Amino acid sequence: MGKLSVVGIGPGDYDNMTVRADRALKNSQVIVGYSVYVDLVKDRYPGKEYRTTAMTQEADRCRLALELAREGRDVAMVCSGDSGIYGMAALIYELRGDSEAPEVEVIPGLTAACSGAALLGAPLTHDFAVISLSDRLTPWDKIAARLRGAAQADLSIVLYNPASRGRPDHLRRACEILLETLPEDRPCGIARMIGREGESGKVLTLGELRDAAVDMFCTVFIGNAQTRAMGGKLITPRGYRDV
Amino acid sequence: MGKLSVVGIGPGDYDNMTVRADRALKNSQVIVGYSVYVDLVKDRYPGKEYRTTAMTQEADRCRLALELAREGRDVAMVCSGDSGIYGMAALIYELRGDSEAPEVEVIPGLTAACSGAALLGAPLTHDFAVISLSDRLTPWDKIAARLRGAAQADLSIVLYNPASRGRPDHLRRACEILLETLPEDRPCGIARMIGREGESGKVLTLGELRDAAVDMFCTVFIGNAQTRAMGGKLITPRGYRDV
Repeated sequence: MGKLSVVGIGPGDYDNMTVRADRALKNSQVIVGYSVYVDLVKDRYPGKEYRTTAMTQEADRCRLALELAREGRDVAMVCSGDSGIYGMAALIYELRGDSEAPEVEVIPGLTAACSGAALLGAPLTHDFAVISLSDRLTPWDKIAARLRGAAQADLSIVLYNPASRGRPDHLRRACEILLETLPEDRPCGIARMIGREGESGKVLTLGELRDAAVDMFCTVFIGNAQTRAMGGKLITPRGYRDV
Repeated sequence: MGKLSVVGIGPGDYDNMTVRADRALKNSQVIVGYSVYVDLVKDRYPGKEYRTTAMTQEADRCRLALELAREGRDVAMVCSGDSGIYGMAALIYELRGDSEAPEVEVIPGLTAACSGAALLGAPLTHDFAVISLSDRLTPWDKIAARLRGAAQADLSIVLYNPASRGRPDHLRRACEILLETLPEDRPCGIARMIGREGESGKVLTLGELRDAAVDMFCTVFIGNAQTRAMGGKLITPRGYRDV
């Protein structure tokens, strides 16, 4: 019986990968993943067998990884960002079910909340919520309620999957919901292509964000009541009392 | 003029540090930090000058790091977990003010939401909130409102700083607030000493969590409506529709 490591590779560059993730990929025999993520690591780990599946084939991908490990191979399944946050770790555990084999190790990685925040400055110094705008697996009403709840509780908010080809207007709809509670001038940021060629960060207001062009390579940050733009950076102080 | 790197070292072990964080520490001349965090890295980076301050001296620590960089030293300020999330990056930017010197680089690290979730299984597969129970810099009413908002929005919740010597009953008070909305049998988890000697994970119910013993080395996870305990792991499915 082989071992299955579910590996968060971080934003995509080697630099932002952990020592542990790097070692797991080096020690694996087969690397399984969505083709875009596999392409990010392929050149660095030659001599491995690579198995890819298309973007929406998550269950097939996980079944394949489990099957290869059951056949005796040491398998690494790569996830961009973290292996758990919007990643494959839960689905691997679910599909393995009550069996204790193969052995599964979940190796965390830098999620876009961490890596995007560092790119923009320090917007997540205090309490925050992470919300995906993808309604592929979640009804929009549920997403809207979470946006309202987070805004009313004065949490900073990180939006994952702010847009894709099938849902170009989700960020606009989300901003309209947030603007029921938050002011137009609330400082926000967009991190794009974090840790990859063409990486960029932009600081803007919530009003501007409503009309901003975003794509599936963007992660969006909305500040809390204390957040401000400072020298091109998005900064949230540590607390509500003087330091 | 030297450079100041604000480095998230992750949970504490070398394995969970990123390649970039490791390089920044190797390339620095002076390493500044809270003494407990400095002790985590000291043996691995010999020949550096180490400067430590006590736990609550955050502003002094940041001023010292900026001053050393202004004097021409290459300085790394170490933060446990991420450099931004409840870390020092914002305070460094605030204290540097409008000046563009010294150069500041924020290097992200694995925050306990990522590393603790991986230890417990996969509790953060879907939307979640991160909330600190420390009322040192935040009024308790604000913390309570955020707990209520997150529970009502069915976000999974990660609690940082669930207890300390000065506030042993904060987790109990937080659980009582969450139990206004959430059921007693909601699956929860405690990750302790993540990535350090004596690391442990425990899965329990929200009712049990209310009476659980926690300390400052614990990070607490509260599941959403879909979360379940499975083979000793805490698992949140990816979405609300079938895969």
